[in-house]
Formats: sequence, C-alpha cells, structure tokens
Amino acid sequence: MAEAVETKFAQSQLRELNTALANGRFVSVRKLLHELPPSDVALLLESSPTKTRDELWDLIDGDIHGDILEELSEDVRNGIISKMVPARVVDALEEMDTDDLAETLSSLPDEVLQDILQSMDAQDRFRAEQALSYGEETAGFIMNTDTITLRPDVTVDVVLRYIRLKGELPENTDTFYVVNRTDNLVGLVPVTRLLTADPEDKVADVMNSEAEAIPVDMPDNEVASLFERYNWLSAPVVDEKHRLVGRITIDDVVDIIREDAEHSMMSMAGLDDEEDTFAPVWQSTQRRSVWLAVNLVTALMAAAVSDLFEATLSQMAVLAILNTIVPSMGGVAGNQTLTLVIRGMALGHVNPGNSRWLVSKELAVGFLNGIIWAVLIASVIALWKQDLTLGLIIAFAMLVNMIAAALSGASLPIVMKKLKIDPALAGSVILTTITDVVGIFAFLGTATLFLI
Amino acid sequence: MAEAVETKFAQSQLRELNTALANGRFVSVRKLLHELPPSDVALLLESSPTKTRDELWDLIDGDIHGDILEELSEDVRNGIISKMVPARVVDALEEMDTDDLAETLSSLPDEVLQDILQSMDAQDRFRAEQALSYGEETAGFIMNTDTITLRPDVTVDVVLRYIRLKGELPENTDTFYVVNRTDNLVGLVPVTRLLTADPEDKVADVMNSEAEAIPVDMPDNEVASLFERYNWLSAPVVDEKHRLVGRITIDDVVDIIREDAEHSMMSMAGLDDEEDTFAPVWQSTQRRSVWLAVNLVTALMAAAVSDLFEATLSQMAVLAILNTIVPSMGGVAGNQTLTLVIRGMALGHVNPGNSRWLVSKELAVGFLNGIIWAVLIASVIALWKQDLTLGLIIAFAMLVNMIAAALSGASLPIVMKKLKIDPALAGSVILTTITDVVGIFAFLGTATLFLI
Repeated sequence: MAEAVETKFAQSQLRELNTALANGRFVSVRKLLHELPPSDVALLLESSPTKTRDELWDLIDGDIHGDILEELSEDVRNGIISKMVPARVVDALEEMDTDDLAETLSSLPDEVLQDILQSMDAQDRFRAEQALSYGEETAGFIMNTDTITLRPDVTVDVVLRYIRLKGELPENTDTFYVVNRTDNLVGLVPVTRLLTADPEDKVADVMNSEAEAIPVDMPDNEVASLFERYNWLSAPVVDEKHRLVGRITIDDVVDIIREDAEHSMMSMAGLDDEEDTFAPVWQSTQRRSVWLAVNLVTALMAAAVSDLFEATLSQMAVLAILNTIVPSMGGVAGNQTLTLVIRGMALGHVNPGNSRWLVSKELAVGFLNGIIWAVLIASVIALWKQDLTLGLIIAFAMLVNMIAAALSGASLPIVMKKLKIDPALAGSVILTTITDVVGIFAFLGTATLFLI
Repeated sequence: MAEAVETKFAQSQLRELNTALANGRFVSVRKLLHELPPSDVALLLESSPTKTRDELWDLIDGDIHGDILEELSEDVRNGIISKMVPARVVDALEEMDTDDLAETLSSLPDEVLQDILQSMDAQDRFRAEQALSYGEETAGFIMNTDTITLRPDVTVDVVLRYIRLKGELPENTDTFYVVNRTDNLVGLVPVTRLLTADPEDKVADVMNSEAEAIPVDMPDNEVASLFERYNWLSAPVVDEKHRLVGRITIDDVVDIIREDAEHSMMSMAGLDDEEDTFAPVWQSTQRRSVWLAVNLVTALMAAAVSDLFEATLSQMAVLAILNTIVPSMGGVAGNQTLTLVIRGMALGHVNPGNSRWLVSKELAVGFLNGIIWAVLIASVIALWKQDLTLGLIIAFAMLVNMIAAALSGASLPIVMKKLKIDPALAGSVILTTITDVVGIFAFLGTATLFLI
C-alpha cells in the first residue's frame, strides 16, 4: 500500500506518459492511459493543447469514454464530443449516472445535442429527456436516482438480509430512505445506524424522521450552502408532493462549491468560468474581446471627461501628469469594498436587515481612507512639485473619490442583486467607470477653479 | 417532515430572531438562539455588527459555546474568544474534535493562546499541544483522531457484534481502518462492505488493501485536490512509518476548497481572505491600507513616467486626454491572462511541461487582441480628433502594450510560483505597474518622436 501511495501521489505515471507522448511512443502512451484512473486521464486531457488532446483521445478505448467524459470540464468535454461520431457518444453516455448525463447533455451546443438524441434508441432517449427535464442549476439537475428505499414496517434484520442478497450498494451510499406506499419520504436511516441497531427493531423505530429533504427545484447554490452548513454527506430530494425522487451526494456538491467560488473570481476579470486554459488562440481571443470592448468604452468615457478640461490641461501639463493617481486609488478602494460585499453575499452574510449598516460602515471606512491618503498625497505632491495649492487640490479630489468608491462598492452589488444582474460580472466595470469619472472630474474641476 | 423543511430552509427562525433582537425582546432572542442549530447561530453572528455580536454571545449558554465557535470564521471567532474569560474558553474547547481544536487555537493571537494554555489542566494542555504539533495547512492539522480500527484476522460477525455493543459511531464514519500489531495501516473496510459481506468472512478477506493513505505532512490543498479528483468521503492519514494516525473527512475538505477558491479572489483585490465583513471601521481601514499604499507607489511611478514627457504634454493637451486609454486596456487584458493562469495552476493544469506552450499561446492571443483593438482605437481617434497620425500612434502603443500584457500575465504567475510568492496576492499589482509604464512610455514616447 505504501508503494501505491507513492506512485499515485507523485504522479509518476503522468510524467512517464508525457515523456512517452513527447517521444511519439504511442503504444506505451496507450497502455499508460488505460492504467490511470479516469479522473487522472481527464486532468491530462485538460492540461494538453487541443491538438495533443485529440491525439490522446483517439488512443483511448470506447468503453472508458463515458468515465472520462464525466470527469472533464464543460469546455473541454464539448470540444471532444463535437468531434466524435454521434453513435459513439451515445455508447459513452449509456453508462453515465443521471446527474452526469444531465450535465453533459445540457452543456452541448443545440445542433450536437439534437444529433445525439436522434442516434439514441427510444429507451435511452426517454432517460436522457428525463434527465434534462429539470432546470439547469437546480437540485433535480444534480441529483442521482439510484436511491435505496426501505419500508417503515420491516425489521432491521430483514433489511440486512436484503442488502446482503443485493451484494453491492450504489457508490457513496451512506443513508437509506424510508418511504410509505405512495412514495412519500417519511424518514432516513444512516448506514451506520443499521450496524448498531437491534436486528429485531422495526425500521420505523430506528429511522430519523426529523431530517430535511431538498425540494427538487431548489437552486444548486442553496443546496451547496445547506451541505456546507450542516456537514451533510448526502440528502434526499423530493418533488412538490413530498415524494422521493432522488438523492444528492457531497461529491457533486463539491463541484458546485468550486465552480461558484471560481465564478466570482473569473467574472471579475471578465472571463467565462468554463474557459479552457488550453483552447485555440482564436477562440480565446473572441471570448476575451467582450470585456475589452466594454473597457474601451469606459476608457473613452474617462477620456471624454478629461476632454472637457482641455483648456486647463493645455495651460498646466502637470495636471496631465497627476491625472491618473486619483482615479487609480479610487478604483482599488472601490474594488476592495465590492469584492468584500460580493463575498459576503455569497456566504449569506449580507441580507436586507444589515445592508444599510454595511453601506454606512463602508462609507466610514472610505471617509477615513480618504483623509489618510489625502494627507499623504498632498505631502508627496507639495514636496515633488513644490506647490502646496496643487497638493491641496489633489487631496480634496482624493477624499471625494474615496467616498464615491466606498458608496458605489458597497451599494452596487446590493442594487444589482435586486435587479437580478450578476454583480461579479458587471460590478467591477461599472465601479471603475464611476471612480474614473468622479476622480477626473474632482481633480481637473477643482484645478480649473483654483489654478487657472 | 415537510414542515421541518419549510421552517429551516425559509430561515423563518432567523428572521424571527432578528425582529426580536431589534425590539429588545431578549428573552425570546435567548430562547430562539438555543433552538437553532449551531451553524445557524454562527451564520447569525457572522452577519451581525460587532456590538450586536457581543450582545448575542452574552445570551448564549456556555455549554454550546464550543459547538458554535467551531462553526465560526477565523476573524469572528478570534474577536469573540479575546473577550472571553480564559477559563470559559477552556470549557468550550474541551468538547471540540482535534481538527477544530487545532484550527481554533492556531489562529489566536499569541498572548491569548498562552493565557488559555495556562488555564488548562495537564491533560487538556497535552491534547492541545498535540493538536498544534502538526504544521498549519497540512493533513495532520485537519485530521481527526477518532478512527475505528479493526484487526485483519477477526471475522465480520465479531466486528458487527463489537459495533452493536459500542452503540454509536463517530460522526461521518464511512470506513473502518485495518491495522496490524504495530499500528501500520494494511487496508480499508467501507461500512457498506460490512453490510454486504458474509458474517463468516475474515476482515482480511473483505478489506481493500489497494487504497491510498495520506502522509501526515501533505499540504492541505493537495489533500483537497485528491478528494475532489477521486470523489472520496474520507481518507486515512499515516505517519512516516505508515502507522495510522487519523482520518480526514470530506466536510473539512469542503472548507479548504471554499477557502482556497476565495483566497485567490480576495487576494487579487488585496484583501485578507479571513476579513470580517462586519468588522469595526478602524480595523477595516487598517487592513485595506496596505494595498492602497502599494497602489499609491504604482500610481506615482506611472505619473513619474508621464513626467518624463512634460514638454510633450504641455505642447499637446490631447495627449494628456488620451494618455489613460492604452494603460487601461493593457491592464484588463493582462489581468484576464493572469487570472486564467492562476486558476489553471490551482487546478493543477499548468505544469513545467506545458507552461512554455501556454506563454506562447497567450502571446498569440495578445498579438491578435493588439491588432484588433489597435485598428478600432485608431479609427475612433482619427474620427474624434480628426488626426490620422494621432490614431496611428495610439494604435502602435496599443499593440505594444497588449503584447506586454499577455507576456507578463502568463509568465508572472509561473515565475512567482517558482520564487514561492503567492501570484494571487502580488501578481495583479506588478502586472498593472508593467502595463501602466509600458503603455504610457509607448504612447507618449512615440508621440514625442512623430508629433513634436
């Protein structure tokens, strides 16, 4: 066992595979690919440029295609599927759990999805359409249907004998579900409870009937926070009539937590969170251009504000030199507040009851920061440019912009959430526009009044 | 059960509590606080300003202090502990699992920790020092010591009877560990396997001896990626002699995944990831000032570059007006690349084998982006300012800066990781300095050559 640990964790097989690939020893590559667990093969594919990725995929046997596809990230998976013959995709999908099937199919471009559905036989197509019937990003979408159900009136001994007869349990089974004749969920029995119970006890006596069930239409990020908050390993999913329809396991929730957290980080840089690091150049260029276009408009707006003060600028070049300092400080301070509030909302800390308090607090922080940096920048400029008035003007602009930054950083995400706009995606660009415009206006405006 | 679901998920109790608190009905508040699960009380405390937080804490009975403390985030927990009498903290810590104990103690300021250790009796102090003996952010630090071990030569029936006798199993037990006489880990038995096994079988016959164990000194983020990659619910931890020392469960790993992902997002905005959204104003102001100080230096450097071209700027005010466009576009493009590469490194996709490929790819994207936005900005400026030469100059500067942005965005995190600097923390500020300096230099420099 010690050795097994070594080889896996050191990823020596992966390294060996990379070497074999670089030297064109395809027979070794093929052999190694089939020795690695599917999740390691998925990691290898995700870490390879598209060309290598396609070469590797061609070396992999069809019967493990499904296992690998379900471990891949959306962008990479779609790239591979769109190059496969529909019939082979259908074969790969057959082995998948319902949640992985739903995720794989829903992310495909529409024409590819239609091709694949048409290549399926009636039974498979029914299963696929069933999996797709719940809205994306809901509990129904991420649940699995392989639950083991018990009746309340049988004894633990009967259950134990039934399980022994069955031989194997679905992956990650930690709880059995107790349902009545109409399939309504009436309780849970943890696997460990079966071990400690008296074999003569009825299921009804050992079950936990207080536990919660997840409604099938609950948004997946709410599901994730419940799992996090209550340290669940799995949870039953019920429909509107409280009938058991499936279960959600922690491994699927982990993916959602990772994706949610990444989503904020990627969105704030104007990136799609599924963006494939190793995508072809042209595809990456297109994806990034949206954000650059938005920023160009912002930058031109800032330039237009400066343009209002052309006469002032042409009289004093020093104003042009210092013109970027105030907007830049406002942008940083505002983005700090924005990030903190977005994180607070994601963790469920910010609610209507405390948001006014939060905005006031951030305003106070902005005011204090404004004072501190105003004094500092006034001293620096007065010394550098030997001009006290200029120092006082930039200090005033700094204070104004720091307050504007705090106010917009704290209130933008709250307002945007009410308007159902994703604050991580649009918040930063709106904020920067505000701090640029206010910063330039305050600095050049005051300078025009007092210096010209 | 349907009702239990309703009340919990709708958080009506939390809302009721907030109303009671606002109206000063402390008896109701107290009652509600003790009805809520500890994780919900923790959420309430985290969502409250410091003053309310202290009032609430005073209403909570000492015997549930420990349960709530272990659910709190570091900053909030430390704030509460530092106001408690050491003896009461010791009482609260007594009930904690080893991993929560380690986390709570290690994050405390040194003088508070010493006070608490001195208030402990010898046995508690030994346990505390044991928990603190593993390095922070290692497997040993996040593991629990409540493992259930089996001997390979006993029968399943004996095990089942032993467990029934024991009555209750530690929380989240999904696997039993098989050890030999010298405590070396020789195999795992999933709880579900015990249910399906023949009672006459020996443990050695049903155990999985291929599974991996985690070395006690493995970094916690590596532990988290293993859990994510292989969908584990728990994993055994072994020391350098392969002796079983504890187990790690998925609920602790979920916290690490969340924290790691948040860390990148918060660091990129220059924030400490444990920063408490509801901290007092002065504390928040101090924490944010580091980043603002760094940014002031950056902004002054950019101003100093502009200062080199004072003569040029005083002759043509239009250059001052347009001076911010090129640096701003470079900053956005560079940050996109930087974010993507940092994410790729966190997911384990970027390695020495493909980093050269990745830098070349990003350079190509930067070049293409440069061409696109150069053409666009040239057209806009030529039309707006009726000056084709000016348009061509800004286009050239844009192309140069986009290439610089791509090159630094892709290579900075790779270089910084080699130097063991956190790229999420320092990457963005270095990148912006580069794109500011290169952008201003390229634009004003070219303008000086061709227009003056």
